[in-house]
Amino acid sequence: MKGSIAIGVDLGGTNIKAALVSREDGLLRQETCETEAHLGPERVVDHIAGLVQKLARDVESSIVGIGIGAPGAIDLERTTVSSPPNFPGWERLHMGNALAPRLGRLAGHVIVENDANVAGLGSAHYGAGVPFDSFIMVTLGTGVGGAIIYRNRIFRGTTGAAGEIGHMTIDYEGPFARSGVAGAIEAYLGQRFLSRHARYRLMNRKDSRIHGMADYDLHGITPRMLYDAAVAGDEGAREILAWAGHKLGCVLGSAINLLDIRKIVVGGGLSAAGDYILDAARRTVHQFVTPALHEGIEIIRESRGNEVGMLGAAHLVFQTLDDQQQASSA
Amino acid sequence: MKGSIAIGVDLGGTNIKAALVSREDGLLRQETCETEAHLGPERVVDHIAGLVQKLARDVESSIVGIGIGAPGAIDLERTTVSSPPNFPGWERLHMGNALAPRLGRLAGHVIVENDANVAGLGSAHYGAGVPFDSFIMVTLGTGVGGAIIYRNRIFRGTTGAAGEIGHMTIDYEGPFARSGVAGAIEAYLGQRFLSRHARYRLMNRKDSRIHGMADYDLHGITPRMLYDAAVAGDEGAREILAWAGHKLGCVLGSAINLLDIRKIVVGGGLSAAGDYILDAARRTVHQFVTPALHEGIEIIRESRGNEVGMLGAAHLVFQTLDDQQQASSA
Repeated sequence: MKGSIAIGVDLGGTNIKAALVSREDGLLRQETCETEAHLGPERVVDHIAGLVQKLARDVESSIVGIGIGAPGAIDLERTTVSSPPNFPGWERLHMGNALAPRLGRLAGHVIVENDANVAGLGSAHYGAGVPFDSFIMVTLGTGVGGAIIYRNRIFRGTTGAAGEIGHMTIDYEGPFARSGVAGAIEAYLGQRFLSRHARYRLMNRKDSRIHGMADYDLHGITPRMLYDAAVAGDEGAREILAWAGHKLGCVLGSAINLLDIRKIVVGGGLSAAGDYILDAARRTVHQFVTPALHEGIEIIRESRGNEVGMLGAAHLVFQTLDDQQQASSA
Repeated sequence: MKGSIAIGVDLGGTNIKAALVSREDGLLRQETCETEAHLGPERVVDHIAGLVQKLARDVESSIVGIGIGAPGAIDLERTTVSSPPNFPGWERLHMGNALAPRLGRLAGHVIVENDANVAGLGSAHYGAGVPFDSFIMVTLGTGVGGAIIYRNRIFRGTTGAAGEIGHMTIDYEGPFARSGVAGAIEAYLGQRFLSRHARYRLMNRKDSRIHGMADYDLHGITPRMLYDAAVAGDEGAREILAWAGHKLGCVLGSAINLLDIRKIVVGGGLSAAGDYILDAARRTVHQFVTPALHEGIEIIRESRGNEVGMLGAAHLVFQTLDDQQQASSA
């Protein structure tokens, strides 16, 4: 449908971001607000509706649907969001039904999808993933998220939850992650775990400039601090980021063996630490892939940052409408 | 096409098995011969042609194609087999072209696929996998093979090599497998590795009846010996099989997280050791899957043994013809 526009929403724990996306011209305009998840699901839905109304002004008739990327479990029909972590009081919510009283006709076509999956789809169609038909998206943020893009579409698995690379183990007797999985990659690269690792590792490394950046006892080391220190030449920070990248390379090797998908796009906050992590991952990954699958392995950074979430959510609307059209004309 | 028949071939390192498979009635008849791989690819192709001719007698006009499951790398078009391990002198062979001078019209529709993948497809349509739309097939033999069946079809990945579960690591500092991957599951469950593990483990376990079954210094312990001893109540043998099953559970957990495919079918020679391995895998697997994906996890044994390879190879012929028909009518 030429001239059609969708709204893509990225529902995060801290902020909600929404964008007006044109099929032909990509991102047109964006709005953002605080999530206020602690005030309950109704408030969050109010906020989403508010952003949509702002964006829809003047172009309402061209809007073909609303795509929402959300944390938590999404049903196979892409209509409900269940138990998103850090959203108290939110059990299971049918987003179209919740938005309908607030948005009327605009809520006629609402589609939800896992946040890591829409980031992958956004990257595939508007970001670093554009050159690849298939790739694995890894999101390094508070946790470690993942998505599988296969032939330009989200690979969903049996219930829609595929891509949980953060829970894959690289050491069956390793440290436990929040999921209870020993040696899960999140137990190394999740923000809390990496911060703690950095803290202990730097205890007997008094020369590191992180000592001047974090609390006196090194609580609350952020990826940003590690990155800034690494850029400034700090050996301790560089070692920590390389350590993290090594672990990332191990799990990516496992995933490549299983999927025969050899392109990796890394996004999320920690990806700001960029090549300090990714170069180590690139050095490691081949050691964890059978030689027959070495050719063409590539690990790159997402170029559009967090925008890919909103863009992918909007794109999912276009893709779904295309599928419906194709099915009805067959 | 009603009444149609395909020939499925399972090209193994020791034997070639071939079957006449009816679309409606399944396996009709089978033939087998030695592979004689050491005599070179031409001899192997002769053997395949010979089996096909035997099977085709009297029903030649109903045969719609030949499917071949083979070790080694298969191209994305499913026409060539490259460098199958333990087939000296075999580089890259276009199977249809190689069979044409020997089989004439019969070689008009030859399709090749990886041996683990056809086993998976055979299981999906004729074996233990029938109840599942999607499952992971693991083949425990000389090595550890794998296939992903997604919505009743082989998930192929980018180049057709997906499913290499044997090379996935469960311990990034673990023992090296033949692929050079540290902690790859094959380094625990591959026949040579398991045999060596058993040998050393039983060194100081003089009460085990394996001492009466294997060589005096415990070389050449086979899965069959372990199974027989386990059935007879041997604690040492049971411990070894449970140890192997625990490792299997770890890697299956990783695969479930990534794919959100929760049904596992285990085939191959070592699966004869059955529940001694699989019960341990069943106990372990949940510990390596994020709780959100626990529901419905199931690990079962392939019920049709090695027949699934031939059956899957034949089914691939039917599936490919259906696809071509659908594409041409669209």
